[in-house]
Amino acid sequence: MEFEEKTLSKEVIFDGVLVHLEREEVLLPNGATSVREIIRHPGAVAMIPFTNDGKMVLVRQFRKPLDRTVVEIPAGKLEGTDVDPLEAAKRELEEETHYHADKWEELVTMYPTPAYLDEKFTLYIAEDLSIIENPRPLDEDEFVEVLECTYEEALALQASGEICDAKTLYALLYWQLRLKEMNENE
Amino acid sequence: MEFEEKTLSKEVIFDGVLVHLEREEVLLPNGATSVREIIRHPGAVAMIPFTNDGKMVLVRQFRKPLDRTVVEIPAGKLEGTDVDPLEAAKRELEEETHYHADKWEELVTMYPTPAYLDEKFTLYIAEDLSIIENPRPLDEDEFVEVLECTYEEALALQASGEICDAKTLYALLYWQLRLKEMNENE
Repeated sequence: MEFEEKTLSKEVIFDGVLVHLEREEVLLPNGATSVREIIRHPGAVAMIPFTNDGKMVLVRQFRKPLDRTVVEIPAGKLEGTDVDPLEAAKRELEEETHYHADKWEELVTMYPTPAYLDEKFTLYIAEDLSIIENPRPLDEDEFVEVLECTYEEALALQASGEICDAKTLYALLYWQLRLKEMNENE
Repeated sequence: MEFEEKTLSKEVIFDGVLVHLEREEVLLPNGATSVREIIRHPGAVAMIPFTNDGKMVLVRQFRKPLDRTVVEIPAGKLEGTDVDPLEAAKRELEEETHYHADKWEELVTMYPTPAYLDEKFTLYIAEDLSIIENPRPLDEDEFVEVLECTYEEALALQASGEICDAKTLYALLYWQLRLKEMNENE
């Protein structure tokens, strides 16, 4: 089966601080044409930080698209100077939570919504945490509250709707599986 | 802790077929102002269809933002006339896979990326599948190949990178957990 959609023309609609929007005219496999609206994003990192006593470190922040606070795993977009996603992950963990992690493991890379967005992010497990005394500051328009949750507390945040984004829901499912495997190995 | 970002002004940047982009000037909790770029989306549905012999129904399609094919669980955006997400889910399953499901269960609602996008989708489990003889057709710019995968086949598609979007990776983690629980109950 032929799938490819060839680009016939491309137009930049908006080149913003975070969002870069393009509009492409494409040639479909059946010879017809269609329009694809594509948001370009520099990519991101996210991490599931586990404290030494088995809690997950989460951050609460206001998300303007939803006009309310959301509790998420720490995350951040890649900056122009980032060559290594792992270094970006270490920086974001420090800035958002004031934690340093000695143990990092890459879990998965995912696209939040490939239908119209090219954002890709790498998800890490961060363990062996220690508090940084003089951490790098947050971006000046970021306001973040750090939470350390047990699994039950995190489930309550999901039930209340404050945990609601794809990467954090993925992290909770991963945590459920991890707890199950820990129980099996006991 | 005060989090709210009050909207000072709002400007529509682009009102496209799928993407609606706004730019808002907001008042931050510390009294400073900042700009938020927000993509508005009508919302969507997605489903994890399990065949009667325990395979997952997946669809392969070209995703222009990634310029390649991606294998995903069936999904679709809400249309203007949709009042009930479950009805939209039934329609999308029929259009994309030619399957009808007698058993539906709502699993979770999630936001793919609440930092700059208001898209929300409801994820269902669809079971008791049967083939529809004269299914509703796909949108005329959609080309979809239907796959029925065992868990091992789905893992191979993840390893090759063709399964790579958040909702389908979530579905695979859910499947892993479900298989584990089935084994425990045997």
